[in-house]
Amino acid sequence: MTIQIRKLDSSAIDFKATLDALLAFEASTDDAIETAVAKILADVKARGNAAVLEYTNRFDRLPNGGAASVDTLDLPQAELQAALDVLPASQRAALQVAADRIRVFHERQKQELQGFTYTEPDGTVLGQRITPLDRVGIYVPGGKAAYPSSVLMNAIPAQVAGVGEIIMVVPTPDGVKNQMVLAAAALAGVTRVITIGGAQAVGALAYGTETIAAVDKIVGPGNAYVAAAKRRVFGTVGIDMIAGPSEILIVCDGTTDPDWVAMDLFSQAEHDELAQAILLCPDADYIAQVEASIAKLLPQMPRQEVIRTSLNDRGALVKVRDMDEACAIANGIAAEHLEISAAEPQQWADKIRHAGAMFLGRYSSESLGDYCCGPNHVLPTSRTARFSSPLGVYDFQKRSSIIYVSEAGAQTLGKVAAELAYGEGLQAHARSAELRIKD
Amino acid sequence: MTIQIRKLDSSAIDFKATLDALLAFEASTDDAIETAVAKILADVKARGNAAVLEYTNRFDRLPNGGAASVDTLDLPQAELQAALDVLPASQRAALQVAADRIRVFHERQKQELQGFTYTEPDGTVLGQRITPLDRVGIYVPGGKAAYPSSVLMNAIPAQVAGVGEIIMVVPTPDGVKNQMVLAAAALAGVTRVITIGGAQAVGALAYGTETIAAVDKIVGPGNAYVAAAKRRVFGTVGIDMIAGPSEILIVCDGTTDPDWVAMDLFSQAEHDELAQAILLCPDADYIAQVEASIAKLLPQMPRQEVIRTSLNDRGALVKVRDMDEACAIANGIAAEHLEISAAEPQQWADKIRHAGAMFLGRYSSESLGDYCCGPNHVLPTSRTARFSSPLGVYDFQKRSSIIYVSEAGAQTLGKVAAELAYGEGLQAHARSAELRIKD
Repeated sequence: MTIQIRKLDSSAIDFKATLDALLAFEASTDDAIETAVAKILADVKARGNAAVLEYTNRFDRLPNGGAASVDTLDLPQAELQAALDVLPASQRAALQVAADRIRVFHERQKQELQGFTYTEPDGTVLGQRITPLDRVGIYVPGGKAAYPSSVLMNAIPAQVAGVGEIIMVVPTPDGVKNQMVLAAAALAGVTRVITIGGAQAVGALAYGTETIAAVDKIVGPGNAYVAAAKRRVFGTVGIDMIAGPSEILIVCDGTTDPDWVAMDLFSQAEHDELAQAILLCPDADYIAQVEASIAKLLPQMPRQEVIRTSLNDRGALVKVRDMDEACAIANGIAAEHLEISAAEPQQWADKIRHAGAMFLGRYSSESLGDYCCGPNHVLPTSRTARFSSPLGVYDFQKRSSIIYVSEAGAQTLGKVAAELAYGEGLQAHARSAELRIKD
Repeated sequence: MTIQIRKLDSSAIDFKATLDALLAFEASTDDAIETAVAKILADVKARGNAAVLEYTNRFDRLPNGGAASVDTLDLPQAELQAALDVLPASQRAALQVAADRIRVFHERQKQELQGFTYTEPDGTVLGQRITPLDRVGIYVPGGKAAYPSSVLMNAIPAQVAGVGEIIMVVPTPDGVKNQMVLAAAALAGVTRVITIGGAQAVGALAYGTETIAAVDKIVGPGNAYVAAAKRRVFGTVGIDMIAGPSEILIVCDGTTDPDWVAMDLFSQAEHDELAQAILLCPDADYIAQVEASIAKLLPQMPRQEVIRTSLNDRGALVKVRDMDEACAIANGIAAEHLEISAAEPQQWADKIRHAGAMFLGRYSSESLGDYCCGPNHVLPTSRTARFSSPLGVYDFQKRSSIIYVSEAGAQTLGKVAAELAYGEGLQAHARSAELRIKD
């Protein structure tokens, strides 16, 4: 199969329709998965560890006839530290730099949200208090999609928020543990690691079992079973967004080395056949250069099959009228990752209203952000950047309103509340306010 | 039917199990509703205004044979202002005070979230930008549950956030408009009011029609059809939490007038037969006084049937060992509304980790907070205060990460990213970082 990424022109009469069709992604719901997940969750809720053990032994094909009890599936902290200690020095150093930088950025996020109170002249005090969640679960996929960077990005914000217990679940198919994932858990302050996965792990975290305390929120990526399970337990616990395929949108003024832009498109496309990589550029000649770079560089890539399918099926090189139009189109796309690969990028960044993360200037490749710049790599996909945010410390905190009404305050506020309560036909509300009013 | 609110003692051996059973609330999903809503949403998505018009004329029984087009269902701003102008002066003044106070509190929330950037020694800039949503939909129920206070509480935070378009939908069963609701919309900065409701209104807001632009988020309470529709469009648009029955938990040291506490319990119970009102107190004699107040005051209440059912079915008066235990139990309940009706309430507030809103001191009745203190009355129910927050300005804003990597920064960060990317088997990520490194 040859690489044949589609080329679009924003001045074409059918451009908007073509682009909309390209962007459209409907997460399919699979009835078989839904039914299986509902059964597993109900079973874990009813039978606890016994169910978790059975599903784990069955689905993860654990060696030696499987685990004898859920207790044996816990990994001691010493094993996490040992995994860190035996990593090659360069890997360990890189993981440490990434963890440190992620922590610095998220500490800054925490500083921003301190809560507040203010006192009114009559002594009434109003405010908002910020507290961390008590206990969270972090789902980490096993097997080939096991990413240590994802452990850092999910666990460190929870740790910075002050979450007391960070429980990581990670399946070990065929008993194989990913040492770099365990090392990342050691660095990220994970307090407990249990080698379970799938819907059974989500159920154990949401409902609790004899030996696993129920958590308040579950975050982290997973396969279709995990996603379906998270959707179903939402409400009993909090969840993060269910991620769609990853996306990059590059707005380029034509001054970046075309090889760099081609490789940035690849770095998104290599994730997944469904990943989406799009370039917007006002310079047709430059687009041709990027196309040539793609053709030249693709054969060198170990994951070229995935990249080719992704670019052919969902990618695009779009000739736009000018950079202003590129920014307008970018706002409509509301991409997860937006690179503004341009000289003087800030002028264009100022026109962007919707993006999960903005990478400004030609040195800011998305891959740097994926690993070690500091901001989170868990970002809103599928146009949800219109209304949602990167994963952050705030996802592991919640607010409570503080209302202290003074005796004097109750006199004035009581009359207002009673008036409105009678207007709504809620007389007990009105009387409750009026009882505090002195005659 | 007599009032017979259950009395519990925290020292009873089965207390925890009894309390857990009392708190348990499983939102039932009704297959008939799910099927009907799925059909309506698909129909609105496919046929737009034609479908919206048909469902509206059918379900809302509009007079004169129904509306001729969706355009005629828009209410002009002048009609909202007229509704405000003709309100009785005392009601209009009360609504204005409430709106002003809600705005002041939410402005304070907005101040807290300003975003940030910081520059590293090598010139790399990292940060977080806060932007408002472009367009939101606010669902307001019609008929008997039409609450002007709810319009203020949902629309004002959106306005303070800087949302450009605030589109309110409100059904008008039998063509009846609630003037106080329209007046509240005028005060709250709603930019457009459309008299449609139900799943068809949710679908119109989520998908857009020929004359209704798709919104980015839908908030506001509704019946089971509206809740099911919101759940289904989640992902296409943002939604607020789906609220469960309202709850009040009163922790009282026995020094508040028992009539006040009884009326505060009523003010929650009068909402709904499923509402939950619970008192925790270490003083058995005081509990008996509250019980007597309940018996004395109940016959005076217009909504006594609802109150009686709610208190009998889901209420409780709980004797606890001491105030410390009361706080521990309160953390387990994570109530939507928590009154600490006590002398020196702050000492107990300091022990509370989970509550939607805390009302401190005996003058701070929940009803004051429902209408006019300033903090939002849309609060997390059903124990979700463990992980979620009151509705606020932050629900109408989102964050974008800002990453500008300098040329020097790309040299050091590139090596770290490449090391980790190779470790994860993502070679295009690694190459993308390495291309920016000078030899």
